[in-house]
Amino acid sequence: TAPFALIAGPCQLEGLGHSRQIAETLVGICSDLAIPLVFKGSFDKANRSSLSGKRGLGIDEGLSILSKISTEFGCPTLTDVHSAQQCPVAAEAVDILQIPAFLCRQTDLLLAAGETGAAINVKKGQFLAPWDMGNVADKIASTGNDRILLTDRGTSFGYNMLVSDFRSLPIMADTGYPVVFDATHSVQLPGGQGTSSGGKREFVPPLARAAIAVGCAALFIETHPDPDNAPSDGPNMMPLDQMAAMLKRLKAIDNLTKAEVS
Amino acid sequence: TAPFALIAGPCQLEGLGHSRQIAETLVGICSDLAIPLVFKGSFDKANRSSLSGKRGLGIDEGLSILSKISTEFGCPTLTDVHSAQQCPVAAEAVDILQIPAFLCRQTDLLLAAGETGAAINVKKGQFLAPWDMGNVADKIASTGNDRILLTDRGTSFGYNMLVSDFRSLPIMADTGYPVVFDATHSVQLPGGQGTSSGGKREFVPPLARAAIAVGCAALFIETHPDPDNAPSDGPNMMPLDQMAAMLKRLKAIDNLTKAEVS
Amino acid sequence: TAPFALIAGPCQLEGLGHSRQIAETLVGICSDLAIPLVFKGSFDKANRSSLSGKRGLGIDEGLSILSKISTEFGCPTLTDVHSAQQCPVAAEAVDILQIPAFLCRQTDLLLAAGETGAAINVKKGQFLAPWDMGNVADKIASTGNDRILLTDRGTSFGYNMLVSDFRSLPIMADTGYPVVFDATHSVQLPGGQGTSSGGKREFVPPLARAAIAVGCAALFIETHPDPDNAPSDGPNMMPLDQMAAMLKRLKAIDNLTKAEVS
Amino acid sequence: TAPFALIAGPCQLEGLGHSRQIAETLVGICSDLAIPLVFKGSFDKANRSSLSGKRGLGIDEGLSILSKISTEFGCPTLTDVHSAQQCPVAAEAVDILQIPAFLCRQTDLLLAAGETGAAINVKKGQFLAPWDMGNVADKIASTGNDRILLTDRGTSFGYNMLVSDFRSLPIMADTGYPVVFDATHSVQLPGGQGTSSGGKREFVPPLARAAIAVGCAALFIETHPDPDNAPSDGPNMMPLDQMAAMLKRLKAIDNLTKAEVS
Repeated sequence: TAPFALIAGPCQLEGLGHSRQIAETLVGICSDLAIPLVFKGSFDKANRSSLSGKRGLGIDEGLSILSKISTEFGCPTLTDVHSAQQCPVAAEAVDILQIPAFLCRQTDLLLAAGETGAAINVKKGQFLAPWDMGNVADKIASTGNDRILLTDRGTSFGYNMLVSDFRSLPIMADTGYPVVFDATHSVQLPGGQGTSSGGKREFVPPLARAAIAVGCAALFIETHPDPDNAPSDGPNMMPLDQMAAMLKRLKAIDNLTKAEVS
Repeated sequence: TAPFALIAGPCQLEGLGHSRQIAETLVGICSDLAIPLVFKGSFDKANRSSLSGKRGLGIDEGLSILSKISTEFGCPTLTDVHSAQQCPVAAEAVDILQIPAFLCRQTDLLLAAGETGAAINVKKGQFLAPWDMGNVADKIASTGNDRILLTDRGTSFGYNMLVSDFRSLPIMADTGYPVVFDATHSVQLPGGQGTSSGGKREFVPPLARAAIAVGCAALFIETHPDPDNAPSDGPNMMPLDQMAAMLKRLKAIDNLTKAEVS
Repeated sequence: TAPFALIAGPCQLEGLGHSRQIAETLVGICSDLAIPLVFKGSFDKANRSSLSGKRGLGIDEGLSILSKISTEFGCPTLTDVHSAQQCPVAAEAVDILQIPAFLCRQTDLLLAAGETGAAINVKKGQFLAPWDMGNVADKIASTGNDRILLTDRGTSFGYNMLVSDFRSLPIMADTGYPVVFDATHSVQLPGGQGTSSGGKREFVPPLARAAIAVGCAALFIETHPDPDNAPSDGPNMMPLDQMAAMLKRLKAIDNLTKAEVS
Repeated sequence: TAPFALIAGPCQLEGLGHSRQIAETLVGICSDLAIPLVFKGSFDKANRSSLSGKRGLGIDEGLSILSKISTEFGCPTLTDVHSAQQCPVAAEAVDILQIPAFLCRQTDLLLAAGETGAAINVKKGQFLAPWDMGNVADKIASTGNDRILLTDRGTSFGYNMLVSDFRSLPIMADTGYPVVFDATHSVQLPGGQGTSSGGKREFVPPLARAAIAVGCAALFIETHPDPDNAPSDGPNMMPLDQMAAMLKRLKAIDNLTKAEVS
């Protein structure tokens, strides 16, 4: 019943200036609204729909940016890792390692992440039932690391579409770990544009409100100053200039929901 | 952006005293919370999972009870119809005719319902996309009757399970008709108990909160003083004595959501 | 392990000459291949996607055509019924009454159909698990009529799409009733063209082969001399002039499959 | 239109004697039936449902066994790889590298596999549409290696269940690459036993027949002399002593299907 935290940032890191712009805006909003902020950015998009999709800045430059953002803005940071080898390197630079949804059952990656001692955010695979995330968390916890977050980013529903089953939030919360709702990947249309994924960003605010009203520990929202020209996930990222209004509404619902409970 | 209304009552009408007990409780709660109430009850369960399921009191006794409830408590009433012939008869007794989800594309039923001039609540078929409900509404509107409500009661998701896709609320609202979220049928597990449907009533409150936070014109919630011994839909009905607390929370979220919008 | 039968004809009856043309072709093919033939045609499309879709010739003219086809060509006939009242009327004219998928749990319709003593073909609802069809068959069998066929015509898979789960054929066969695979409705894209359903007729032959290889008692295939100009289900009907080649292949696989088993 | 090939072996390699027993039986059957055989075995189960599931013999012992099987029995071999680093090592020992379904979009793994020059069998992710496998194949082909196989192993259908959509075989074949149907993983019930996956091996033969009748280049079938005591995938593996009868039927259908086509 703590107030919700926000994990936000661009889909992929595009440069220090770009990250600064986004972090500055988010820090301002979250400071005003008393929302704990984690800045997120990816150094590598390791599973693009097609080879023509941009991969990102790479681990060295990416982690360097995240370190600077953390220092300059005083906020914790998160990045996603794709191999066991990346885990200790990334854990030097960021506070939270994220396991991508497709990789949520790769035992070696989960163990390597857990062994860093960093907090670990695991995204539920689009192919996994929410009650099966307990087994995933147990793999990480076997390393002695119980700083685990479980994120719902949508579930396969026919082809090229995801559905957000909000029963998953209380079901995953039964594990005892904080549960996160990823409001921007949930509205992806995977592969929906032939060689890249589509998305419907107009559904981000209502689904985020739904998640807060159901009750969750954090929201995950990708944002960009110019999503239509972003190198990845443009169709489902929130425009940076719409974050303040959306978060204000979400904060009010969260205050109410959490107050009612306690 | 009007405050949400509540359509509530037992799954099936079991007798005048039983309906009175439920109506009295609901009228009291809704009066306290300034929630417009429609009392709902079914006179016939026409599509039970198996022949062993109880059908109900029949149209004569059922409509008689609904008329008395309406008169005694001064609230509008709703019942579901299953054939064109039942429409004019039921429209004499109730304010809203409901088209069951399985029947949402039966043209003759939709036209007969529309022609009564009563308000018509159509449940989206479990097999139908939300954007296909425009065609359904058009069939009714062709009779000159545009007092139409569209209800989401869950969508087929694998076997013996439904999922609530909350994108459907704004999508159906694009028709211009008020949209209702059915919080109790959405948690059904169709056929989940072999010869009857199962359900998970613990998910009714969170899904109802999600719907209100997304934004909808009304909630549909079946309730019973003793759901575990109800003749139908027991596993997914809300206990009557839990309605007040749930509705109080929902009202607060609705106030906030609708205020934020306007 | 009897050879497969064929239920075939146009989606909707369009006139006596049109039915004669189709029946003559099918009778010729099935006579050559020793495939028992049931001629099917609908007198009313009662659940079109939108009001603009053609309904059909009506029950009087439709049944009259089916009677003449039966007499002229000596083959049994099938038509679908949509209300309890239609059952005894239709049973005067045809050998098999068909219950549409959306209506497969409407108890009164199932009982009225069963009470005619005609054979009853029930299509599995797109929203129903195959193991739940036993309850459906039991409703009919409660009338003392056990001449029941169970048909798979696809299962909801996301929005606007069906999937054919071939496990359903042996699962439904466990009831002891003959199982039919509907190869043309299975490739429908429900609502896929906005105000009407789309379809992919190129998948009819491979899915029909799959059904025969899995093992089924009959195939249901809608066919038309000019599907692209048919009043309904054009995108998924098989062109009449492609039936002979497809059925020849299917017969060979069926001979082999059934011989191997015995 | 070449006769179908068989990729078969145990889920996980358990020892040289165990592999020899399986290979000897399979080689005998396939020699009798003129079915080209690829022996498959996994050295590591990298994504078990839970930590308690056995991982396997490891890459050194596993590849050593596969090399010996290849030499002794003269058949090509296949194993699955889980990281870019494993690719060149495994390609020294086996003829075909397999990309697991969860990893089918991991660009670095696909490129590393392609660069070995070995044939690459990619399993379609349970979360992926069949028409999206073209992008996956293009990643491999970008290395100059076009020895690519595409395998369907089932698609997410609700929770804890897969469905085999047989339209995927012709859709994936449109890429020009040979298409494989994995008949044993398709009947998995992922996570269906709490800490491990369940399965329904009784559906392997009918689904394999369906795939052959639809038309495919190869079948993938895991088999074990004592599946109920196998360390993984027991519920869905075929008992080794049932392979001969099943393959005989499949070969007959394949002969017929491919003859009819040409």
